[in-house]
Amino acid sequence: FDYDGPSMKTTVPGPRSQLFVLLLNFVFSQNVGAVNFFCNYEESRGNYLVDVDGNRMLDVYTQISSIPIGYNHPALLKLMTNPNNLSTFVNRPALGILPPENFPDKLTESLLSIAPSGMSRVQTMACGSCSNENAYKAMFIWYRNKERGQSGPSAEDISSCMVNQGPGCPDLSILSFTGAFHGRTLGCLATTHSKVIHKLDVPSFDWPIAPFPRLQYPLEEFSRENAQEEARCLEEVEDLIVKWRQKGKPVAGIVIEPIQAEGGDNHASADFFIRLRRIAAKHGCAFHVDEVQTGGGCTGKFWAHEHWGSDDPADIVSFSKKLLTGGYYHKEPYRIFNTWMGDPSKNLFLCEVLNVIRRENLLEEVARSGKALINGLYELQAQYPGLLSRARGQGTFCAIDVRDDATRDKILVKTRDKAAAPICDHELQKGFNTSSPLSV
Amino acid sequence: FDYDGPSMKTTVPGPRSQLFVLLLNFVFSQNVGAVNFFCNYEESRGNYLVDVDGNRMLDVYTQISSIPIGYNHPALLKLMTNPNNLSTFVNRPALGILPPENFPDKLTESLLSIAPSGMSRVQTMACGSCSNENAYKAMFIWYRNKERGQSGPSAEDISSCMVNQGPGCPDLSILSFTGAFHGRTLGCLATTHSKVIHKLDVPSFDWPIAPFPRLQYPLEEFSRENAQEEARCLEEVEDLIVKWRQKGKPVAGIVIEPIQAEGGDNHASADFFIRLRRIAAKHGCAFHVDEVQTGGGCTGKFWAHEHWGSDDPADIVSFSKKLLTGGYYHKEPYRIFNTWMGDPSKNLFLCEVLNVIRRENLLEEVARSGKALINGLYELQAQYPGLLSRARGQGTFCAIDVRDDATRDKILVKTRDKAAAPICDHELQKGFNTSSPLSV
Ligand code: FES
Repeated sequence: FDYDGPSMKTTVPGPRSQLFVLLLNFVFSQNVGAVNFFCNYEESRGNYLVDVDGNRMLDVYTQISSIPIGYNHPALLKLMTNPNNLSTFVNRPALGILPPENFPDKLTESLLSIAPSGMSRVQTMACGSCSNENAYKAMFIWYRNKERGQSGPSAEDISSCMVNQGPGCPDLSILSFTGAFHGRTLGCLATTHSKVIHKLDVPSFDWPIAPFPRLQYPLEEFSRENAQEEARCLEEVEDLIVKWRQKGKPVAGIVIEPIQAEGGDNHASADFFIRLRRIAAKHGCAFHVDEVQTGGGCTGKFWAHEHWGSDDPADIVSFSKKLLTGGYYHKEPYRIFNTWMGDPSKNLFLCEVLNVIRRENLLEEVARSGKALINGLYELQAQYPGLLSRARGQGTFCAIDVRDDATRDKILVKTRDKAAAPICDHELQKGFNTSSPLSV
Repeated sequence: FDYDGPSMKTTVPGPRSQLFVLLLNFVFSQNVGAVNFFCNYEESRGNYLVDVDGNRMLDVYTQISSIPIGYNHPALLKLMTNPNNLSTFVNRPALGILPPENFPDKLTESLLSIAPSGMSRVQTMACGSCSNENAYKAMFIWYRNKERGQSGPSAEDISSCMVNQGPGCPDLSILSFTGAFHGRTLGCLATTHSKVIHKLDVPSFDWPIAPFPRLQYPLEEFSRENAQEEARCLEEVEDLIVKWRQKGKPVAGIVIEPIQAEGGDNHASADFFIRLRRIAAKHGCAFHVDEVQTGGGCTGKFWAHEHWGSDDPADIVSFSKKLLTGGYYHKEPYRIFNTWMGDPSKNLFLCEVLNVIRRENLLEEVARSGKALINGLYELQAQYPGLLSRARGQGTFCAIDVRDDATRDKILVKTRDKAAAPICDHELQKGFNTSSPLSV
């Protein structure tokens, strides 16, 4: 069955959610700081998330963008009841050394069938952070191999690396952008610059950070200014590459999101990304496109970088979230390994998700409903010019800025509590920055 | 049904495994460097791993120590067929903000029921690396909060952290040990010192590395020497803490494995760990025991640190692998967050695994068979003194050193290929270091 709309029974969090929070906090001493309400996932369906108080909300947050085709999709439930799949769930293998028989098949059906242009290799991982961490390692290894040429690692490389020192542990860097989010483990975190709360008190690397373009909207009115802004950012990238090379910390790779999500829904033009990729190549840096948040179809194409129209978009493309398994596509084989190297049960789900996306033409559906969404945002900002501005988006990956945090928070709670058109208030979390964007 | 013993049909890797490796390598351009053979997980059962060529091997490797109660355990298969559990597999939540209704219950039944002494809080994660990465972050945050006292972060803390600089990103360190393995993401890797292949070409932190005791066997013959060796290592720990404080990179935490696994099965006495914990406390460093490899019962107790007999063994205990979900126990609430914060479907399995461990008294079984195993190793080394030495172990976590790499490799392949008592040759990978230990 499908729900025909939202339905609110209590204020949120309702009494049962509040009780569970108290329980978790005081009885179990657990950290509940970020818990908003408790969910009834059995009762959730499609786009509708049901909480333990029976409130049914239109979910535009989708578990931090990680539910690809809605809750309890019949195709996924069916997969679970197929006895042939049981063993995949029960026996999690160390995929890198003891893969299951159907591994090549499942890879073709799933990740290799959606490989970005120019990329034939994929390395599965378990989440966005290990995908990016290992992609960074792959770039470092690639860079050092390039430097060494034919000769293998020296005796000094080998002895020094065991005690965290150069030249074995080289002083290489990854160039990232202001407002970027690439994860929270220490390597990823050194390239994340979206919020203080992620970074404060954690040691980091002295790596270069370039400005991400800050576009003015509507785009058609500011084309000259925006082109200048993007040129300024690209110039800064080149300056930083040169400066860090002089510092003795050469840039092995550049990492960027096609749309900065956590950083406040920041977009740039296709031209910007294509020129950035060229700068990377010119200076011998690998180019890594982080599609953890943007991959999976939400922009109307399977990968956001497809909007650039390039047949050689990147050296590395990482993914996770809506792809259920993490990992990265790449061109060269690298020395990367860990215990699980992903989880075949997630791969099983991904195969089915891709089938559904194809069978139901969901990418076209995203483009169509994305258009309706952005047009609605355009209308709203025309109607409330003092309140709303900078409506922007690609597919359903849309955002609008609200005058200030307080107004934004009011709008969010009001729309959620108005059963006609609720927005799940976890958006509060995502939109929590100074420019107060409201991502929808 | 149960298998009654191993059964070898072909040499390993057999023709089908070889075919799959070729397929993966040449057709799909995948990196197959570490792949040994392909497995038939449907046909694997209990302690017996079956490959795609029908070879059935006694598996003492258990997917790099991550299969807790054998392949296709009936209790886990049954769990999969319970329709009430379907939704947990199909709808992976962002656990930190939108937990499912049964989350407190499942936590009590699973992780909280096995909490180490003195610890009431647990943070779930998805693998050993994010467990340790986040445990390190927790220690850094704890250390800085302690330094700041009542006052919150300064304006300078806040602005500097966004660009990877101090004081917001402080120059703090984690003290680790030679031979340690704590994972391969950049933070974890800075504390890993087991093999060159993990470390080479990856930038790292200048963090202190203390010697792990190198005990002489049999223990009863070398008690004086071993006590001296442990005292020397502890002294070095104190020296390093002082030295790194003077360097301006204070040690926020000490991380150690109760048994170094990847580093070659290195043990130390309970007294060593208890004194180390005291040194940590004396110098204001957090004490983190990494039980990713040792936790889950293989030492004959659920946690290896229980052998120390301390009721306050650590400030943080991390886990993964045989616990199926990752995570860490701790005492204070910290500011830690990511998208998934673990996976409730793994927690579901863990509940059942714990039930089986209790119902079938598996810890006693481990102690019993561990005794048989170590006695067998003692006998063998008495019989082949030039070949085998340093038999050691706790529970079934046993090892013996072989004269040289070539002999070790020969023994491994021979025992595996002799259907009567095969050892899975992936042990090759684990035992691959200079002292040539043979972990069984
Ligand atoms: S770091 Fe990705 S699952 Fe642990």
